[in-house]
Amino acid sequence: MSSQAPHPTLLIPGPIEFDDAVLQSMAHYAESHVAPGFVKTFGETLTLVRKLFQSTKPAAQPFIISGSGTLGWDVVASSLVEKGENALVLHTGYFADSFAACLTTYGANATQLKAPIGERPSFEDIEQALKEKTYKIITITHVDTSTGVLSDIKRIAEIVRRVSPKTLVVVDGVCSVGCEEIAFDEWDLDVVLTASQKAIGCPPGLSILMTSGRAIDVFKNRKTPPASYYSSIGNWLPIMQNYENLKPSYFATPPTQLVHALHTTLSQITSRPMAERFAVHTQASDRVKAAVAELGLKQLAAKPENQAHAMTAIWLPEGLAPPDVLPGLLKRGVIFAAGLHKEAATKYIRFGHMGVSVSDPARKDIDNAIAALKEAMAEAKQAKGL
Amino acid sequence: MSSQAPHPTLLIPGPIEFDDAVLQSMAHYAESHVAPGFVKTFGETLTLVRKLFQSTKPAAQPFIISGSGTLGWDVVASSLVEKGENALVLHTGYFADSFAACLTTYGANATQLKAPIGERPSFEDIEQALKEKTYKIITITHVDTSTGVLSDIKRIAEIVRRVSPKTLVVVDGVCSVGCEEIAFDEWDLDVVLTASQKAIGCPPGLSILMTSGRAIDVFKNRKTPPASYYSSIGNWLPIMQNYENLKPSYFATPPTQLVHALHTTLSQITSRPMAERFAVHTQASDRVKAAVAELGLKQLAAKPENQAHAMTAIWLPEGLAPPDVLPGLLKRGVIFAAGLHKEAATKYIRFGHMGVSVSDPARKDIDNAIAALKEAMAEAKQAKGL
Repeated sequence: MSSQAPHPTLLIPGPIEFDDAVLQSMAHYAESHVAPGFVKTFGETLTLVRKLFQSTKPAAQPFIISGSGTLGWDVVASSLVEKGENALVLHTGYFADSFAACLTTYGANATQLKAPIGERPSFEDIEQALKEKTYKIITITHVDTSTGVLSDIKRIAEIVRRVSPKTLVVVDGVCSVGCEEIAFDEWDLDVVLTASQKAIGCPPGLSILMTSGRAIDVFKNRKTPPASYYSSIGNWLPIMQNYENLKPSYFATPPTQLVHALHTTLSQITSRPMAERFAVHTQASDRVKAAVAELGLKQLAAKPENQAHAMTAIWLPEGLAPPDVLPGLLKRGVIFAAGLHKEAATKYIRFGHMGVSVSDPARKDIDNAIAALKEAMAEAKQAKGL
Repeated sequence: MSSQAPHPTLLIPGPIEFDDAVLQSMAHYAESHVAPGFVKTFGETLTLVRKLFQSTKPAAQPFIISGSGTLGWDVVASSLVEKGENALVLHTGYFADSFAACLTTYGANATQLKAPIGERPSFEDIEQALKEKTYKIITITHVDTSTGVLSDIKRIAEIVRRVSPKTLVVVDGVCSVGCEEIAFDEWDLDVVLTASQKAIGCPPGLSILMTSGRAIDVFKNRKTPPASYYSSIGNWLPIMQNYENLKPSYFATPPTQLVHALHTTLSQITSRPMAERFAVHTQASDRVKAAVAELGLKQLAAKPENQAHAMTAIWLPEGLAPPDVLPGLLKRGVIFAAGLHKEAATKYIRFGHMGVSVSDPARKDIDNAIAALKEAMAEAKQAKGL
C-alpha cells in the first residue's frame, strides 16, 4: 500500500510517479549543508550518479546543481563553447530549437540539422556536416520529449570520433537517463545532461550532468572567461570534488531535501544491474506500442529504430484533438500529456512510461493506462461521430 | 508534537528549522506542472510573494525559479545590466564580493564601496559615489550572512531617488526577506532577490525575486540581447504572468514539491500582519544580543543600528576557534555555523534566529540555544585554560 494520498496516475513524459521512500526523503528534517551528515549524503549521491552512467573513469565528473533540466544547456553553452565557435545541433523536436537558442544566447554559431517530425537526421548527413566545418560541440537530444524520437547516440559518437575527434559529444538526456541504455565511458561521450524528474524518479529541481575528462579539459583551456556565473563549470567543479571527498564546500546552498530524494532513488536504481532496468523499460514500451498499433493509431516516430522506450507520442485520428481524449483518460484515473511540437501540438498526445510505473511489479499502471486509452478513444470517437 | 525525526536544532543563518506542514508539502504526490491543480498552486504562490513584500502595484512582478539564491544575482546581472555599464556594490561582507564577481562575469563594471568588518558604507560615501558616476544599478546586501550586518535599504533607496533617480535599487535579501522589514512599493525598491531556505522557512531550491515595473521596463528597453538564457527575465516573465492568471505555460519544469512547500509557508506567514512577524524577530534578536553581551562577547556588527535581527555573528574570545565551541553546542542539541568572512572565518561563530524557531511559541529553541551557548563557552574556555 502506498502512503501517498489517492491521486490520478501521472503518465506524462515527466514528472513521473514517485516511490514512497523517495517522497519521504523529500520531508527530511532541516540539516546544515556543510555538516558531516549532509556532506556524506551529497558525496554518496555524486558517486551514485557515476554508477547511473556506468562510468568508472576518475577523470569523469558528475555535477548536481539546483535548477531545472533547462539549466544544463546553460552549463554547456556558457562553459564549453566560446563566442563565435560552432555548434552542430541535431534536431528531432522542440528541444533542439531551445538548446540552439541557449547556445546562441552565449555567442555560439548554432547550425541545426533538421529532420521531418518523427524522423532524425541521417548518419550520412551528420558525417557530411562534421566534414564541412569545425564544430566545438555536437548536441543530440537522446529522447525528444516532444516527439518520442530516440537518437542513436552510440553510433553518432563513433562518427564524431572518426571524423572530428575533438568535437565534444553533448547529449540532452533529460528524457532518457535512467531508462535508455547509456554507457558513458564506453561510448566515449563528453556530456550527458539530465534532470531529476523523469526516469530517475525524483521530484523536479535538480540539474544533473555527467562530464568527461575531455570536457573538463576544454573548460580549463578556455581562451575567454566563462560566459555565466551560476552555470560555470569552474564555480561548481571544486564543490563537487570536495563533497565527493567528504569535504564541505560552498558556492550556493544545495537543495538538501532534493539531494536526499535523489540519493534514495539512485540507491534503488543502482542496486540492480542497469541492463535489467533498460530491459524492463523496453518490455513496457513494447507493450504500449503494440496496444497503440492494435488501436489502429500511429506514432510520431514511425520507424521502430526511432522509437523511445521512455514514452510514446501518438497521432490522434483526423477530427480528434487532445481535449477530446485527455479528460476521458483523467476520468479513468490516468494523466497523459498533450502534444508539444510547435507544428503539430493539437494533433497528438504523449504517454510517458518510466520509473516505478514500469519497474514496480506491484503497480498496474501500464495495464490500467492501456485499458483507459482504449475506452477513452472509443468514447471520443463516438462523441464526434467518427 | 512534531512529526519530524529527532534531530539537533538547526540555528545557522539558513537553512532553518521547518514547520511540519511545510515538510509534509515536500512529500506531495506527483503532479503535472501544467495541470489545473498545480497551476492554481503556483499562481497563488506568486500572489503570496506579493503579500510577503507588501506590494500591491500591478506592474511589480514576482518570480519563482528553480535554483539557489545565488541564481538571483545572475538574473540581475544578465537581465538588467548591459556590457560596460556601471554597478555600485555596497560591501558589508562575503556576499558583496560574490555579487560583484557575478556582475563582472556578465560584463558590468562593478565598483565596490567597502567598509571594515562589521561596518557598512556611510550614507555620505554612498551619496558621493552616486554623484561621481552614472550607475545602472546599486546593489545592497540587506543582511550579510557572513557578518550579520544589516543595511538601511529604505534610507539608501531615498538617497538613490534623490541623487540618481534612474539607478535601479537591487537588494540581496537572501537573509532578510521574511524577518526584516521590507515595504517594496513604499520604499520604491526595484529588485529584492531572495532564496527559500532562510526566514521564509521553506527548504532550499528556489530563487525568488520581486521586481518593480521600472526594472521590467529596463529589461524591455535593453539595447543588447540578455546575456543569459536560464537567467533571462525575458524567458520567465510570460511564464510567471501566465501562471498567476491560472494559465499553464512552459519554459522549464518548475520544482512542483518545493512550490507546494513555499505555498504552505507563505500562507502561514501572510495570515498575520507582516509587522507582527518583524516584531517577533526583533524581540528574539534583542534577547540573543543581550545574552551575548552578558557573556562578555562582542558582535561583528558592533553598532546596534548595524545589527541584523535574523542572526548574530559573535567574535570568539582570543584563543578560541569555532571547532572549540561548535561541538559543545552540538552535544547540547544545537547547531550554529562557523565564520564565513574570508579575513576572519576562524575567529567567530554565527547564530541564526529566524522562522519557526522564533515565531512558534511552543518551541523553546532560542532559550535552549542561549543556555547551550553559555555552557559550551564555559566548557571551551576551561578546556583551553582561559
